[in-house]
Amino acid sequence: MSMLLFYIMRYKLTDPENPNNDRFVLSKRLSFVNVATGWLGQGLGIACGMAYTGRYFDKASYRVFCLIGDGESSEGSVWEAMAFASHYSLDNLVAIFDVNHLCHSSTQPLEHRVDLFQKRCEAFGWSTFVVDGRDVEALCHVFQQAAQVKSKPTAVVAKTFRGHGMPRKEELIRYLGNECVLSIGLQMLRMLIESQIQTKKKLNPKPPVENSPQINITDIEMTSPPAYNVGDMIATRKACGLALAKLGRANDRVVVLDGNSKNSTFSDIFKKEHPEHFIECSSEQNMVSVALGCATRGRMVTFLCTFAAFLTRAFDQIRMGAISRTSINLIGSHCGASIGEDSPSQMALEDLAMFRTVPNCTIFYPSDAISTEHAVFLAANTKGMCYIRISRPETAVIYTPDEIFEIGRAKVVRNNVNDRLTVVGAGVTLHEALAAADDLSKQEDISIRVIDLFTVKPLDAATIISNAKATGGQIITVEDHSSEGGIGEAVCAAVSTVPDILVHQLAVPGAPRSEKPNEPLSMFGISARQITVAVKCILMN
Amino acid sequence: MSMLLFYIMRYKLTDPENPNNDRFVLSKRLSFVNVATGWLGQGLGIACGMAYTGRYFDKASYRVFCLIGDGESSEGSVWEAMAFASHYSLDNLVAIFDVNHLCHSSTQPLEHRVDLFQKRCEAFGWSTFVVDGRDVEALCHVFQQAAQVKSKPTAVVAKTFRGHGMPRKEELIRYLGNECVLSIGLQMLRMLIESQIQTKKKLNPKPPVENSPQINITDIEMTSPPAYNVGDMIATRKACGLALAKLGRANDRVVVLDGNSKNSTFSDIFKKEHPEHFIECSSEQNMVSVALGCATRGRMVTFLCTFAAFLTRAFDQIRMGAISRTSINLIGSHCGASIGEDSPSQMALEDLAMFRTVPNCTIFYPSDAISTEHAVFLAANTKGMCYIRISRPETAVIYTPDEIFEIGRAKVVRNNVNDRLTVVGAGVTLHEALAAADDLSKQEDISIRVIDLFTVKPLDAATIISNAKATGGQIITVEDHSSEGGIGEAVCAAVSTVPDILVHQLAVPGAPRSEKPNEPLSMFGISARQITVAVKCILMN
Repeated sequence: MSMLLFYIMRYKLTDPENPNNDRFVLSKRLSFVNVATGWLGQGLGIACGMAYTGRYFDKASYRVFCLIGDGESSEGSVWEAMAFASHYSLDNLVAIFDVNHLCHSSTQPLEHRVDLFQKRCEAFGWSTFVVDGRDVEALCHVFQQAAQVKSKPTAVVAKTFRGHGMPRKEELIRYLGNECVLSIGLQMLRMLIESQIQTKKKLNPKPPVENSPQINITDIEMTSPPAYNVGDMIATRKACGLALAKLGRANDRVVVLDGNSKNSTFSDIFKKEHPEHFIECSSEQNMVSVALGCATRGRMVTFLCTFAAFLTRAFDQIRMGAISRTSINLIGSHCGASIGEDSPSQMALEDLAMFRTVPNCTIFYPSDAISTEHAVFLAANTKGMCYIRISRPETAVIYTPDEIFEIGRAKVVRNNVNDRLTVVGAGVTLHEALAAADDLSKQEDISIRVIDLFTVKPLDAATIISNAKATGGQIITVEDHSSEGGIGEAVCAAVSTVPDILVHQLAVPGAPRSEKPNEPLSMFGISARQITVAVKCILMN
Repeated sequence: MSMLLFYIMRYKLTDPENPNNDRFVLSKRLSFVNVATGWLGQGLGIACGMAYTGRYFDKASYRVFCLIGDGESSEGSVWEAMAFASHYSLDNLVAIFDVNHLCHSSTQPLEHRVDLFQKRCEAFGWSTFVVDGRDVEALCHVFQQAAQVKSKPTAVVAKTFRGHGMPRKEELIRYLGNECVLSIGLQMLRMLIESQIQTKKKLNPKPPVENSPQINITDIEMTSPPAYNVGDMIATRKACGLALAKLGRANDRVVVLDGNSKNSTFSDIFKKEHPEHFIECSSEQNMVSVALGCATRGRMVTFLCTFAAFLTRAFDQIRMGAISRTSINLIGSHCGASIGEDSPSQMALEDLAMFRTVPNCTIFYPSDAISTEHAVFLAANTKGMCYIRISRPETAVIYTPDEIFEIGRAKVVRNNVNDRLTVVGAGVTLHEALAAADDLSKQEDISIRVIDLFTVKPLDAATIISNAKATGGQIITVEDHSSEGGIGEAVCAAVSTVPDILVHQLAVPGAPRSEKPNEPLSMFGISARQITVAVKCILMN
């Protein structure tokens, strides 16, 4: 650490957020150095995002150092990042493996075998040095060599001994965890360390090379209104790809990542127009970590796209990104049972529940192409994490190009004075609700109100409550999601302290099976027909 | 595939579930062969669980084969499994890497470089053979060699060409994904394949060696009542470790996995008593996959323990395990803000939301040592996935040893005719609710009812509704979890169609910060004091 901080890294001590500073990611512990890498194995992916940004977007001299514990290197996410870094030739990245052979409750599987670490790092395409972590001069030499390596990232595998140079070492090296490690006082520890310092020279880090570009990623404006007409048929996933491409024209610091699904998420539309601002990733956990790295220090407007179901793979990375208050935007396509004949494994029926638990996360669930384009631009301009949920099927454009959208503001899309019930929908189910409203009006002379949530979080409780009160206190929620933790429960919770409002949930039940594309919503009980039946049942009682 | 199924694997064609059969896991596609490995990179971990069971528990001759796509091998979970298999010397495991260099939307990062796959497999401790996947005799030879390898798993890296031997190959090798691959009809494809068969001999697989033990993992009885007295102070996590050890005495097919946290989850109590039935894992995703593998074909009663927060890491594996209807039991300790001074990254505030979305998952949230022991035995005897949420702090035993617990049955733990409100709690918050009830009774002469959920899913809606109706229609939920998707919203949804019941939620708000252990519940608004205030506010209005 001292070697890195005082001899190798270049940065301004007085200005830790300077964009020209070298970056340091302390992956092995629960601490904040740009990002909270709470659970282990997440730091290197984030460091990859920083290094990618430095090399390909900033084209600047700053370098990225990441300290990794040997225990956390059991996490596969570390090896995803190792593969990513060599694939993209991130020679501005140095990873230090601290091989002290101790974990939380036991020794780690490879024990003190630095040769095995070396073999793995080399197999993953890294220039690798093995060093005695106690030997300051050897470390210095190795880091200087690392700076010379071209077109490959560098791994420094350091054999270390916890408590080295300390008295009562056997007490210090007890396993981490509950019975915590430090059995000598901090005061004593400080004295011990100070007694080993042999110079009075004040150490100053080298200053950074100031060649990071000036950037501006705030207030990105939609240069022209959305180019769709009411009634156009287009999937929100396609509108999203087009919106990203448009966003890329509006600001030159937009980056889009995809996990090898660009031809399904339509992020390939962005890629075609902005090939140098697109990052192809091969695994979801690492993709989220790389995105977090790109977004640090406000360097990039960062979007990532994949099937919504596969974001479950990265829940821990998402959770930690939110705790670090990083501004990244995640787009989950192919949500819900409306994907039809694809496997149940690809149906996201839990993504709303997952993102709703993420602190300070804004959740957009647009229902047509126009609201999708607004969601993308709003997300780009919103601090913190944003999630945009988009769908596979083509649906009609229902808003006009001049419609204004705001976070936390639902749209009452169908409204008559004699409405007898309010249906709350979003995405594909909004269209089902509108069809049900048509049928009920024509065939039964029953008038119902329909609300499009637009954002699921924050939820527009005021609009829901006032409309429920105006329509007999009856709400039906209909969602292409499991009944747990999604729109239905969000609405139940929003009205739970308001008297005389009842909420009836329509949602996808139990474990889904794949269905033919024509009828999935009907098979799962969330189609216009089932909304119609539910309305009639409720009004009959 | 034909080589494996007709020359190498030993199994009874007429009895695919026979415990002596060799196992086959098709990881690279979305299909069911014992388990649904929906998204990619999950198959090898499951195969590891099967191979571990074969080698260490069944001590039988059956072997495990896993076909892995080159694309999915970008997932870190594959490398977690690679490390696990070599660490435990699983020489009954063969992984075949199908290197056809094509992914969903592009080529895979290593292209057709089988040498790089070989290097990585060898670095992870596998005996590795490279072979031309089109050469039947070479494959045969390699698989025979694999059978001779001792104390190491074997990797077969096969270079393949999609559409090899087919006409119009260039159309066949279009990338996977939407524009699907098969541009010739099935009929035509079948004819083409049949035209290449040069023998009329009927192929039969070799029969298995019948040396798997007879086992029984049903109806495991608690041999003696729980050995706690009302008022004893003990953390549910510790009671859980003791219950697992007791379960291991009741049945010899119990296996417990832990992700290097056994001294915190107290699974080390089980390990000490049943060392040969404990598996130390180093990463959460792989641990869940290994557990799924152990549980297939009903061979083992499988429990895994880790910090509840770290289960977010394995959400995708959990989701897929539930879709496969596998019976595994997950134990999440250190739930909620009650862990106190540990980092927010270690506070599980989203685990209930996560598991509630999992189809057919039973969720136990015991509040004392006695209910914890019952939860463990009930989970062991329940088909499908079970989740047990346990807490770090010591809490009082409130039930007597003869209390009977059932899934989906809440306990009314405090009940008077003049109760004016119902508080629903679980785990640590139940104790806060009881303290609040004491305070309110003594200081304000206000009587409140208190319900212990015991299982969060299924939720005992009937008990909640009847007690709410008996106490003025007022419910307070109090949970050591985020307000989204947990107990509060579950209760809101359960009463949402019942008139005249209001639900007031107390939950942990926003992004938590670490707090001193004495006061975390109070800091986060879920302590007895805040319940007391909430009760008084509600009754005043």
